[in-house]
Amino acid sequence: MGDRYANFANSGVGRGVVKRLGLPDPPRLRRYRPGDPLTPGPVLLGGTAGRLAGPVGKLLEAAGVPVVETAEEGARLGALVFDATGITGSAGLRALYDYFHPVARSLVPSGRVIVLGTPPAAAANPREATAQRALEGLTRSIGKEFGRGITSQLVYVAPGGEEAVESTLRFLLSGRSAYVSGQVVEIGAGRAPAPADWDRPLAGKTALVTGAARGIGAAIARVLARDGADVIALDVPAAGDALAGVANDVRGRAVQLDLTAPDAPTRLAGHLSGLDILVHNAGITRDKTIARMDESRWDSVLDVNLSSQERINDLLLERGIIKAGGRLIGVASIAGIAGNRGQTNYATSKAGVIGLVRSMAPVLAGQGITINAVAPGFIETAMTARMPMFLREAGRRMNSMSQGGLPVDVAETISWFASPGSATVTGNVVRVCGQSLLGA
Amino acid sequence: MGDRYANFANSGVGRGVVKRLGLPDPPRLRRYRPGDPLTPGPVLLGGTAGRLAGPVGKLLEAAGVPVVETAEEGARLGALVFDATGITGSAGLRALYDYFHPVARSLVPSGRVIVLGTPPAAAANPREATAQRALEGLTRSIGKEFGRGITSQLVYVAPGGEEAVESTLRFLLSGRSAYVSGQVVEIGAGRAPAPADWDRPLAGKTALVTGAARGIGAAIARVLARDGADVIALDVPAAGDALAGVANDVRGRAVQLDLTAPDAPTRLAGHLSGLDILVHNAGITRDKTIARMDESRWDSVLDVNLSSQERINDLLLERGIIKAGGRLIGVASIAGIAGNRGQTNYATSKAGVIGLVRSMAPVLAGQGITINAVAPGFIETAMTARMPMFLREAGRRMNSMSQGGLPVDVAETISWFASPGSATVTGNVVRVCGQSLLGA
Repeated sequence: MGDRYANFANSGVGRGVVKRLGLPDPPRLRRYRPGDPLTPGPVLLGGTAGRLAGPVGKLLEAAGVPVVETAEEGARLGALVFDATGITGSAGLRALYDYFHPVARSLVPSGRVIVLGTPPAAAANPREATAQRALEGLTRSIGKEFGRGITSQLVYVAPGGEEAVESTLRFLLSGRSAYVSGQVVEIGAGRAPAPADWDRPLAGKTALVTGAARGIGAAIARVLARDGADVIALDVPAAGDALAGVANDVRGRAVQLDLTAPDAPTRLAGHLSGLDILVHNAGITRDKTIARMDESRWDSVLDVNLSSQERINDLLLERGIIKAGGRLIGVASIAGIAGNRGQTNYATSKAGVIGLVRSMAPVLAGQGITINAVAPGFIETAMTARMPMFLREAGRRMNSMSQGGLPVDVAETISWFASPGSATVTGNVVRVCGQSLLGA
Repeated sequence: MGDRYANFANSGVGRGVVKRLGLPDPPRLRRYRPGDPLTPGPVLLGGTAGRLAGPVGKLLEAAGVPVVETAEEGARLGALVFDATGITGSAGLRALYDYFHPVARSLVPSGRVIVLGTPPAAAANPREATAQRALEGLTRSIGKEFGRGITSQLVYVAPGGEEAVESTLRFLLSGRSAYVSGQVVEIGAGRAPAPADWDRPLAGKTALVTGAARGIGAAIARVLARDGADVIALDVPAAGDALAGVANDVRGRAVQLDLTAPDAPTRLAGHLSGLDILVHNAGITRDKTIARMDESRWDSVLDVNLSSQERINDLLLERGIIKAGGRLIGVASIAGIAGNRGQTNYATSKAGVIGLVRSMAPVLAGQGITINAVAPGFIETAMTARMPMFLREAGRRMNSMSQGGLPVDVAETISWFASPGSATVTGNVVRVCGQSLLGA
C-alpha cells in the first residue's frame, strides 16, 4: 500500500495534490541507541533570572553534555534550553524572542527545544500565571515551525522540584523522545533518586505489561527489558504463541490471562509477589457509529480499556503488591482527547483513562506511587497498515514530523515514566504523536 | 475566490480530490433570530438518578419547550439532553449507550446533544471522577459523528450549581450556538439571576467592545445591542469612519483610542462611569517565522493582544469601574491552544489570554465578576478571505460543520458569557470553531 501512495504522489496529478496539501518529505528521526550521546551537539542554555538554569547547567555538564551560553554565527546546536521561570509578566516574554530569534536556524536535524516554566497554578499572582501559560503558545508554534525532526516542549517545574528534572530532560533531549513534540509536561515538587546507570535505569525493577504479545505492547516489553527491568508479559490465551516469543526475547515471564474475567485481578495477584511498574497497554477497538453499534461493542471496549484497569489497580494497591515508588502507566489515545467518528465507545474509554490518571495521581502521591499515561497518535502497526490509503496517509503526514511514529516511540515514553528518576512526574498525559494537528 | 474553489471542486480532477478528502456539502446552520423557539423540536430528557434532570425538566417546561421522556420510532427530536451526574463508575457509562443508541438518528438538522456531568475535580472519589471525565470522549465523538449541523457539548455543573444552568442551556439549545460544538463548559456552584426578558438579557447593562470597527468586533457590538446592552464601540483613530458607522447602527457611543498608548487605561477610565461588560476583542496578527520576525512584530502583537488587556483590566478593577456582577470577556484563538507556524507571537499572546482567564477567575469570584474567553476557529472575515485558496478551504472544511463560522457566532457566545444568567460561568475558554479537527 505504501507503493500505491508513492505512485500516486509521483504521478502528475498526485504531485500537485501532495504539494498543495503541504506534505513534505519526512525527515529521518534520531532514535535512541544505548551509548548514544544525549544530544547531537552543544546545548545553548538561556534564561533570565530563573531558578532552573543553574541546576540544569550543572546536571548537563555532569552528564557530559557540552553547554554554551552564547552561539557563534553559523553554530550547529543540538538543543535550545531556555529557563523561563524568571518571567513574571507578559512584557517579560520578550526574553523568549531575544533568545530564539537569532538561533532559530542553528539547530541540527532532530535537535531539541525545551522551555522550562513554573506551573501557572503555582505562580505568585495572575500576571505571572498569565505569562507562564503564554509559554505554551510559543513552544507549540516552534514545534510546527522548525521542522527537520526538531521537537519542542514546555516543561513546568513546580517550585521545589528543581533537583528532580534530570530524568525528564534526558528523555526529552535524547533520541528516546523522537516522536514526542508540542507537549506540556509537569514535574512536581520533591526529589527523585538518580539511577546508578542512566542507560539501565530500570535495573532491579519488575514490570508487568498487558497486551504484550504484539505491536506497541511487545515494543514496551522490549524497551523496559533493554532498560534493565525484569518483564512479565501478559496477554490473552489466544495470543499465547506470540506472547511466548516476546517473553523469550526479553528473557521474561509470560502470563496468559483474560483481563475481563471476573476473577482476573485475583488470579493476576497470584502471579505477583511485588510489582514496581504496571503498564496497562491492553486495549481493543470495536468501531461503529453509535446508531449502528450493538451493546457488546460498547461493553467490551469499555471493560477491556477502562473498567478492568480500574479493578486491577484497586486490587493490587489494596493488597500492597504495587510497591512504594511504584509506577502505574496507562495508554490513552488522541481519540480520548478529541473524540472520533465511529469511536464513541473507544473515545469514552480512553477519556476515562485520562480521568483515571488525573484523579488517582493525588491519591497515590502519599505512597510515592506515580500514575501517568501516554496518548499515541498515528503509530505504524499492523492495525494502521489496514487503514484505507488516503486516511492512512493523512494520519501519517498531518503532524510536525510528517510521518507516523513507531511502537518504540510509545515504549520509550513509558520507560521515562517508569524511571526511578521520574518520581515527581505524576498526573501527566503525554501525547506520542509527532505533534499531530488533531486535537481538542 | 469562492468561485475558484467551486470550479475546482466541480472539475474532473477536483471532484475526485474533494471526495477523497471527505469534504461533504456543508449543511445550512440554524442561527438565532429573536422570537425563535428555543429548539426545533421536542427535547428528549434522559438520565439515571442524577441531580440535574429534575431542575432542567422544570426550566425547559417553564420556557415552553416540549419535553418528552421516551421517543417513538421515527420521532423527530430537537435535542437530546442527558443527565449523567448519577454515573458513579465506568460500568455506569453503559447508560449513555442505552440512551443514545436508539435515538441517534432522531435529531432534526441543527439539533442538539447536551450531556450534563459533575466536574471530575468535584467527584466523590476517583471512580466517579474517571467516569465523569470519560463523558468527554462520548460528546466529542458524537459531535464528529452526527453531522447535519448537529452540535454536541458536555456541561459540567458543580454541586450546588443546579439552579443556575438556564442561561447556558438556552445558549446551547438555541441557534445562538450554531457554530459551537465539541466543547466542555463548566458551571460553578451558586445561583444566578434570571433576566426579566430572555430575548433582551442585557437590558440596562453597559458594554464596551474593543476593536469594534469591523469584522468580529462589529458583530459583537451589534449582538450585544440586539440583546439590550448600551454599547460603547472602541477602535483606533484610523478606523474612525467605520467605527462611527457601527456606533450609529447600534445607537451607541464611539470611542477612538489607541489601547497601547501608555495613558490609554487612564484615558479609557475617563470615558466610563461604570461598566458591566468589557469585551477585549482588539487584536492583531504580524505573521513571520521567529527566524524572520523583527522585534516590532513580537512587541506589537504581545502588547495589543495581551499586555494592554492586562493593564486595562487592572486599572478599571482598581478604580471600581467594573461593577459588581461585571463580565470580562477575552478573545483567544485556536492558535493559542495548538500553536501555529509563523505565529509564535500571536499564539503566545493568545495562550496568555487563556492564562489570564484561568488565573483571574478565582481572584474575581469574590466580587461577583466573571472572566471567560472565546477561541474562534475559522471565521469568515475579510482576513480569512485573503488566505490562499487551498489553506482557506482546508480551514473551512476541517470541522464538524464542514464550513467556516460567521462573526455573529463568536458574538453570540460572548453575549451568553455577558448574560446576568451566566453569573456562575467563569474561567471558561470556549471554542467557536464548529469542532475544528485542529487542537492540542
